[in-house]
Amino acid sequence: MSGPPLTIGVVAPACRITPELAAEVRALAQASHPGRVKVQVDPQCFLSSGHFAGDDAARADAFVRAANDPAIDAVWVARGGYGSGRLIESVLPRLEPAARRKTYLGYSDAGALLGALYGTGCAGVAHGPMPADLSRPGGEAAVRRALRWLVDRDPDAVEPGVRAGPPSAAFNLTILASLIGTPWQPDLAGHVLLLEEVSEHMYRIDRTFAHITANPAIRRVAGIRLGRCSLIPANDPDFGRTEEEVCREWCARSGIAYLGRADIGHDIDNRVAPFGIGRA
Amino acid sequence: MSGPPLTIGVVAPACRITPELAAEVRALAQASHPGRVKVQVDPQCFLSSGHFAGDDAARADAFVRAANDPAIDAVWVARGGYGSGRLIESVLPRLEPAARRKTYLGYSDAGALLGALYGTGCAGVAHGPMPADLSRPGGEAAVRRALRWLVDRDPDAVEPGVRAGPPSAAFNLTILASLIGTPWQPDLAGHVLLLEEVSEHMYRIDRTFAHITANPAIRRVAGIRLGRCSLIPANDPDFGRTEEEVCREWCARSGIAYLGRADIGHDIDNRVAPFGIGRA
Repeated sequence: MSGPPLTIGVVAPACRITPELAAEVRALAQASHPGRVKVQVDPQCFLSSGHFAGDDAARADAFVRAANDPAIDAVWVARGGYGSGRLIESVLPRLEPAARRKTYLGYSDAGALLGALYGTGCAGVAHGPMPADLSRPGGEAAVRRALRWLVDRDPDAVEPGVRAGPPSAAFNLTILASLIGTPWQPDLAGHVLLLEEVSEHMYRIDRTFAHITANPAIRRVAGIRLGRCSLIPANDPDFGRTEEEVCREWCARSGIAYLGRADIGHDIDNRVAPFGIGRA
Repeated sequence: MSGPPLTIGVVAPACRITPELAAEVRALAQASHPGRVKVQVDPQCFLSSGHFAGDDAARADAFVRAANDPAIDAVWVARGGYGSGRLIESVLPRLEPAARRKTYLGYSDAGALLGALYGTGCAGVAHGPMPADLSRPGGEAAVRRALRWLVDRDPDAVEPGVRAGPPSAAFNLTILASLIGTPWQPDLAGHVLLLEEVSEHMYRIDRTFAHITANPAIRRVAGIRLGRCSLIPANDPDFGRTEEEVCREWCARSGIAYLGRADIGHDIDNRVAPFGIGRA
């Protein structure tokens, strides 16, 4: 394969990354795809405003800049945490046609903004590893996987069921719940919905599944597949059900097909799940 | 005042209480309102099924029994925790006319079921202390306040703004969020919405305010008043805003009037907030 290098714009709609981490990601990309990719990290990623990588205006402006720049092929969310949902109402009205023709990659908190983008007609949204995953032990594998998908559309980087199957969408469970009943809840009718969770008590996982599966629009998904649920704090008393039992119960109660596990999660094995028709 | 004693049916749609606590509440009621109240604790309150006071069927059946019993004047939720929302779909279709004519009192997790009841036309719902509040240091004051409202409709037991004002409704913030976009989200148009929170990080409080104030139906409330937000775990880094600043910001962004603080919360000072027109 050849052609002009792919330009990836890194922005941080939630929490910041360090310049050191950004340099590592750039070096990794040059090593793995020499001459074939340019990783352009917006300096906004290094801003700090309390919890956030700069204030809402700085974060929204950087996101809109990258989304609307015809020279940027893919917008890569630097890190999760919390904050992308705060930008939705400001970002969506400013998107230009170029924003609808490119790729967006991220997960966790980023799902709020990515879900809203998908809902507004940006077809190139995907759930998958972010630059900040480099901070996880062994995280280089996750970042390399993301790059193989961004640059090569390597099918091995893609979640196997998504690669094979009907249209899909992937979210952190709690983040999807925060879109339910808002104008930015994407229409996922006919999609297989992949859901993962981290650091939530099992009673909260149960409550959140109850919430989303009660929503009439969510009841029109083609089915749910459950990603990994990690770092679940102990329930006192023990909740007595696994995350898969919880998911199966709410699927059964709501008439949604439970379609098994999904290879996504807050970890280095997190595969890429492009929204819509798997475009591997 | 005289007349036949008021009969209060205590049920536990979420977590259990002990027979000892039930006996204390009965004794307290007899001491404070001798001959004027009968506190009838359903044995379901003492069941244990993992996290819950009995399985879903046992909890739903007890609730429906009390709601439909014409001899019970008020249904008092024993305790919060988690579980009442799991019963909504089973409880609502079984309610008979008697269920629509009585009082329901509880808060925290109970708000899921109470909110759904209000949405389905049960006008006598109120947010206020529960028997389990006896376990708090000084909690007797809260339980006595609940009894003064249940038996005497004592105006001093009622949240001052609710007593004075337009129709209102009160919820734990996270619990209201779990109703957003479900068939059980009550229509709160024209209501002043009182919201309190406990044990949630400030970034979560922010996210949840963002969520509920984005919902078009919530945007039709007459305003929001903020109850106490207690036991907020430390944010790292510091979130940099208080709960009132967070609430004010989302009210401003969504065009909802911010109407000040409310005297409710997860504490012994929690006043009673009857839904609808304050009926003190």
